[in-house]
Amino acid sequence: MTLRVGIIGAGPSGMAQLRAFESARQNGAEIPHIMCFEKQDDWGGQWNSSWRTGLDAHGEPIHSSMYRHLWSNGPKECLEFSDYSFDEHFGRAISSFPPREVLFEYIKGRVEKSDVRKYVQFQTAARWVSYNELTQEFTLTVEDLPTGSTSEHIFDKLVVSTGHFSFPAAPEFTGINSFPGEVLHAHDFRGAERFAGKNILLIGSSYSAEDIGMQSHKMGAASVTFSYRSAPMGFDWPENTVERPLVTHFDANTAHFSDGSSGDFDAVVLCTGYQHKYPFLPSDLALKSKNVLYPANLYKGVVWQQNTNLFYLGAQDQYYTFNMFDAQAWFARDVMTGAVELPSLEAREADIERWLGLQAALLDHNAEADFQSEYLRELIAATDYPPFDLAAVSQLFKDWMGHKATDILGYRDMSHRSVVTGTLAAKHHTRWLNAMDDSLQRYLQGPSQDVDTATLDAVTAEAISR
Amino acid sequence: MTLRVGIIGAGPSGMAQLRAFESARQNGAEIPHIMCFEKQDDWGGQWNSSWRTGLDAHGEPIHSSMYRHLWSNGPKECLEFSDYSFDEHFGRAISSFPPREVLFEYIKGRVEKSDVRKYVQFQTAARWVSYNELTQEFTLTVEDLPTGSTSEHIFDKLVVSTGHFSFPAAPEFTGINSFPGEVLHAHDFRGAERFAGKNILLIGSSYSAEDIGMQSHKMGAASVTFSYRSAPMGFDWPENTVERPLVTHFDANTAHFSDGSSGDFDAVVLCTGYQHKYPFLPSDLALKSKNVLYPANLYKGVVWQQNTNLFYLGAQDQYYTFNMFDAQAWFARDVMTGAVELPSLEAREADIERWLGLQAALLDHNAEADFQSEYLRELIAATDYPPFDLAAVSQLFKDWMGHKATDILGYRDMSHRSVVTGTLAAKHHTRWLNAMDDSLQRYLQGPSQDVDTATLDAVTAEAISR
Repeated sequence: MTLRVGIIGAGPSGMAQLRAFESARQNGAEIPHIMCFEKQDDWGGQWNSSWRTGLDAHGEPIHSSMYRHLWSNGPKECLEFSDYSFDEHFGRAISSFPPREVLFEYIKGRVEKSDVRKYVQFQTAARWVSYNELTQEFTLTVEDLPTGSTSEHIFDKLVVSTGHFSFPAAPEFTGINSFPGEVLHAHDFRGAERFAGKNILLIGSSYSAEDIGMQSHKMGAASVTFSYRSAPMGFDWPENTVERPLVTHFDANTAHFSDGSSGDFDAVVLCTGYQHKYPFLPSDLALKSKNVLYPANLYKGVVWQQNTNLFYLGAQDQYYTFNMFDAQAWFARDVMTGAVELPSLEAREADIERWLGLQAALLDHNAEADFQSEYLRELIAATDYPPFDLAAVSQLFKDWMGHKATDILGYRDMSHRSVVTGTLAAKHHTRWLNAMDDSLQRYLQGPSQDVDTATLDAVTAEAISR
Repeated sequence: MTLRVGIIGAGPSGMAQLRAFESARQNGAEIPHIMCFEKQDDWGGQWNSSWRTGLDAHGEPIHSSMYRHLWSNGPKECLEFSDYSFDEHFGRAISSFPPREVLFEYIKGRVEKSDVRKYVQFQTAARWVSYNELTQEFTLTVEDLPTGSTSEHIFDKLVVSTGHFSFPAAPEFTGINSFPGEVLHAHDFRGAERFAGKNILLIGSSYSAEDIGMQSHKMGAASVTFSYRSAPMGFDWPENTVERPLVTHFDANTAHFSDGSSGDFDAVVLCTGYQHKYPFLPSDLALKSKNVLYPANLYKGVVWQQNTNLFYLGAQDQYYTFNMFDAQAWFARDVMTGAVELPSLEAREADIERWLGLQAALLDHNAEADFQSEYLRELIAATDYPPFDLAAVSQLFKDWMGHKATDILGYRDMSHRSVVTGTLAAKHHTRWLNAMDDSLQRYLQGPSQDVDTATLDAVTAEAISR
């Protein structure tokens, strides 16, 4: 009987899984019976953003945490598909840090070339999964959201590709219930225009805090204050930007920090991270993890230890993104079809333990990037996913982090070189700090919003000369 | 074997169901094995409000749509429990329109006197229900949110008391994705303090729009604009408050209305209602309904037509609230135990059709209030729930609506008379428009925030003389 594969979620990971099977089909393989379920009305996951917050038009939790004026915060050369380059999609060199819509176009471009959209049932939410140990079958109940009709589907293999940056994590803060201004989680942030002239407090010290803080600065916030739990980010911030330790409590619009300082704020953005949450899974199948580079209980970061018919894609913290999802999807595909043979439970456990040990020893961000490169090296070696120069990408990550340390407002103006095509990224027509139109059209066609292009030339001269 | 009853939700309706069984127990009856599951960490449902929006600390959709400075928008005398009066709880007369915390105290007071909290598993979300036709048993899978552990429970009867004012309904509006100010649904509104000096657009023409609009006025909004789809509310609004027909589109911060007018706004609140949503139910058990006084498919507004082991409480639009949930819970209890015998499917269908016919003929709000009074009359007659003067409550609703038509900012300063105790409500120490502290303590102990108490005396003289 033809293998039956269910895929939950058609974001970048689910799309990678569809593409992995399509690649096999194009190479002459017989592929399984595939059904993919996506609660949104289009694929793209996080990249398919919405003005809505909280719950969507059908009352489902909003998936995307993205916002207007979100530009890639890492070089696109670090996430490039090795089987579908940026050059192939855009027909010319583009810059290293494109806005959301441009990257969304890119990931859609690859799957639209394949005949895989037919596998996806949109506006369909996963409701509940059960597993029959005797028959080794999953029963997945889904709801067609426009009609409310629920139905059951049987699968031999199940892929969970629903992401883990959608369900906010937010602690309680004393007094926050009477803070008179706006209080929102980064997940519900949709744009910083309304923070012009305001004093903004961002609680958190990771990517969300950094980017929403600098968005607020770009859009004219009067001041930006970060509050950290463990350590400050320590970037060379622009004026009127400060870092404070953790908020101890709020008193009306005043936030008090653990160092005894305080400040009055107009809005609070909780950049306090996300939680792994799989409300459609029984607890013996649900991954419980912090946002780490190597979650326990997943062999090669993909295969559920206690039930190897279950697969997770993109469940780890991410230096690599699209290309890592690819490497995982190709690996999951080959485990499903038997092309990759799984070792014993004990051998898999030992492999996981080895990786967890390496993870525990990581000392800094550079080491983390190398760690994830090594992880990809193993995955890619196991399948026919086109290899690419992982050491070079590791170096790109390090260059990028160096640029951020030097110039937090200017690192996106640097150009990096593709390891897939060798192409050096184009210099964008407008510096990030001046770009007030993040549309695909403006990105591709301009005109520039820079007033002083000479300065930009100087800024990017070094990168271009590399 | 002892009957097994599962209750999903411990808001006012679920609490009423617990109280209904407790009442039977106190009267010497043997009561079923009861388990109640509540996703929040306390009971009270909507009345247990949170500063959070969107998703809660466990990533579950936030239940409560209430906000700071929410005062009852109907007379408390219309919702008084007939077995537990306001006088009994507070030991003295209080005003007719108390703030949220005061009503929360009242509904907690009744159940805390009973030994029923032991039945409730808090922080426990309903995940999935299945029904076995052969055994006539429900299997309810729940998740203990702090641990993520899922478990199954078997019930003979299942009560759905999860409410229907928690999942927002919100249409799409062209251009809203680039509206630069705050856009939120009424469900996520937590206070109007930050609207001081701002121009606010409220889309909708029901209770949410009316109340959030007047909250905004009270907190100093520069202007309040309502946008209606069918008809304006037509109240005698304060200055700087206008009603416009439906928004056709947004252009940056400008809203365009269908009459050709337009306006610039700082924030948009979507007061566009809620949807019935039961993501834990298969579609053959899930109520599909608009917010109407008599949803189809529920016998006596309570018993699921196709499976009389399933019960819904509070699923209708509500003039009556707490006391209606009581009448329904007592009725559901007696159907479960057999004390009330259900007629045939056909007879039930005919009864539903009769009520739907009456509903279709309702001409105005007064008729709607009478309709729901008649509905309660039937329910209460069927059980031992203590009867009360429904005609008098119908008149209270009409008086209240008259007061609103006369003085939308002052109707909460009027006093109404209890039909349970005969007590005339106390005059509150502060007019609603001046009350800037909505805490239980301030409500009960004062001091007044009125500057000009003579004016208040004049305003309420008429009501008190009734």
